[in-house]
Amino acid sequence: MHIDSFVDVLQTELTNTQYGQQPPELYDPIRYIMSLGGKRLRPLLTLMGTYLFTDDWQKAVRPALAVEVFHNFTLMHDDIMDQAPLRRGNPTVHEKWNPNTAILSGDVMLVNAFELILNVAPDQLQTALTRFSRTAAEVCEGQQLDMNFETRWDVTETEYIEMIRLKTSVLLGFALELGGLIAGADAQTMKLLYEAGVNVGIGFQLKDDLLDVYGDPAKFGKQVGGDIIANKKTFLLIEALEQGTGQLRDDLDGWLRRTDFDKAEKVRAVTAIYDQLRIRTITEQRIDAYFSKGFACFEQINADPTRKAVLLEFVQQLIGRES
Amino acid sequence: MHIDSFVDVLQTELTNTQYGQQPPELYDPIRYIMSLGGKRLRPLLTLMGTYLFTDDWQKAVRPALAVEVFHNFTLMHDDIMDQAPLRRGNPTVHEKWNPNTAILSGDVMLVNAFELILNVAPDQLQTALTRFSRTAAEVCEGQQLDMNFETRWDVTETEYIEMIRLKTSVLLGFALELGGLIAGADAQTMKLLYEAGVNVGIGFQLKDDLLDVYGDPAKFGKQVGGDIIANKKTFLLIEALEQGTGQLRDDLDGWLRRTDFDKAEKVRAVTAIYDQLRIRTITEQRIDAYFSKGFACFEQINADPTRKAVLLEFVQQLIGRES
Repeated sequence: MHIDSFVDVLQTELTNTQYGQQPPELYDPIRYIMSLGGKRLRPLLTLMGTYLFTDDWQKAVRPALAVEVFHNFTLMHDDIMDQAPLRRGNPTVHEKWNPNTAILSGDVMLVNAFELILNVAPDQLQTALTRFSRTAAEVCEGQQLDMNFETRWDVTETEYIEMIRLKTSVLLGFALELGGLIAGADAQTMKLLYEAGVNVGIGFQLKDDLLDVYGDPAKFGKQVGGDIIANKKTFLLIEALEQGTGQLRDDLDGWLRRTDFDKAEKVRAVTAIYDQLRIRTITEQRIDAYFSKGFACFEQINADPTRKAVLLEFVQQLIGRES
Repeated sequence: MHIDSFVDVLQTELTNTQYGQQPPELYDPIRYIMSLGGKRLRPLLTLMGTYLFTDDWQKAVRPALAVEVFHNFTLMHDDIMDQAPLRRGNPTVHEKWNPNTAILSGDVMLVNAFELILNVAPDQLQTALTRFSRTAAEVCEGQQLDMNFETRWDVTETEYIEMIRLKTSVLLGFALELGGLIAGADAQTMKLLYEAGVNVGIGFQLKDDLLDVYGDPAKFGKQVGGDIIANKKTFLLIEALEQGTGQLRDDLDGWLRRTDFDKAEKVRAVTAIYDQLRIRTITEQRIDAYFSKGFACFEQINADPTRKAVLLEFVQQLIGRES
């Protein structure tokens, strides 16, 4: 089995799924955001989670889609809250239509996600829904924490990790766990799948923060230093604020306060401060620790090694990414 | 059994329900909007729908709460879209906090509603969730149609009825149907409960439109004529636009276009146009027809007459309201 098989089946399902018809103002934005692409990481994790234990992984396709629809719902609403003009290089829904449409289309997407989850076997329904709704609430909690952090300068590393765990990682954990559930895995295995997803997810998010500063400009899709320019509270900045003292801290604060600056100069200067504080090494160590913890969970899962290899190769690809 | 028994138990459950704790910015607005009161019409319909067939109606309390939480979620998001400053005489969530908080707290309320529905018996889960999610999507469709109608002057009576059916009535239907489901009622009975709720709901909404113009100022809680002042597309206005011709239609159009006017004079003039077109009688006839259709459904439901009497008395009270 190759990863492409999962991608192909998922893509067909994505193309064929009807989210609703009338009124078009409500459903067009759903089709639009779902068509913008993305790595389809979460539903692929669900499919591979099911394939770990059974050849009949296609029964996981529609529940897997629930996770993708839910993820895109969060993007649609987060983009309103963040006033983001672009999503994957295209106008965001609230820009292309208007904020009210983005609110309401997002709402119906969340409902659609619950409808898609209903495609699990009847005896899995209670667990699937309990876990999905708990995860969904946690993702909202993470987004609220993220917004709270915007106006705070004393966010600790622990608080930051908890925020990204909720905002992004629990959904990766749930995606894998759901795959296991559909395959009929036991509770302990589901827990391992979940923990694996959460830990890899945290590492993945920290790597995102790292690449913004230390990514290879030739490979990194976005402008290197974008987070520095925007004063975005990344793991690197929080770490530097926690570690920096004396002149170094004053310099950092100065750059954070400045409103009129040369972008390249700010990126250079802040990166130099990070370098002096060894933030790159600290971040890489933390990323490795989360990835290792995730892989230790995968290790403990009792499944056919060739099946496991497909999932692990996929996760390795994600981890090794440079954009 | 008296209606107050249902109200008391529901109130206790509302007081005791935890929606979540951290971060408070996410959950405080939920507690706030849920504390603003209201008639608790929908969950009471669920409880009485269960009581129709069993003494064990208390098992319906938490699923009934799902319907109330969902309803309040729609209010929180609709208030953003409508830029409404007040809800039940208190600041709306987006005013008291901000629009982002109202978006995100609303999202988590929708998730909470799904979590509460999970409190039905395992063998009812699939039906409860399928029907709930379909209803929830329809309510969003109704809200979108309502927004679409704001910029249209050719909305037909049929379109308007379909909009209010979706936006407000299907949830009343679902509330009753859910009560029946929890009591173990058969599919035909559930359908009758649903149809009863939908038809009474449409009549109820039309009565709302009627009272705004023809309500007794001494009994009507709001300013009589508020809809006329705001050019709100009510059943009465749509009917007048459909029926009015010649000078009468020109006069109506004139009042609709005018931006600088004496409020009392506009209310008097538009009401006079409605009177000439016999809009009051037409509306009352339509209301009666929907209420009759609803009661005909109740009639067909096979349940103990004393139990049925409790529900019918409650619905009669709602129907007879003058505010």
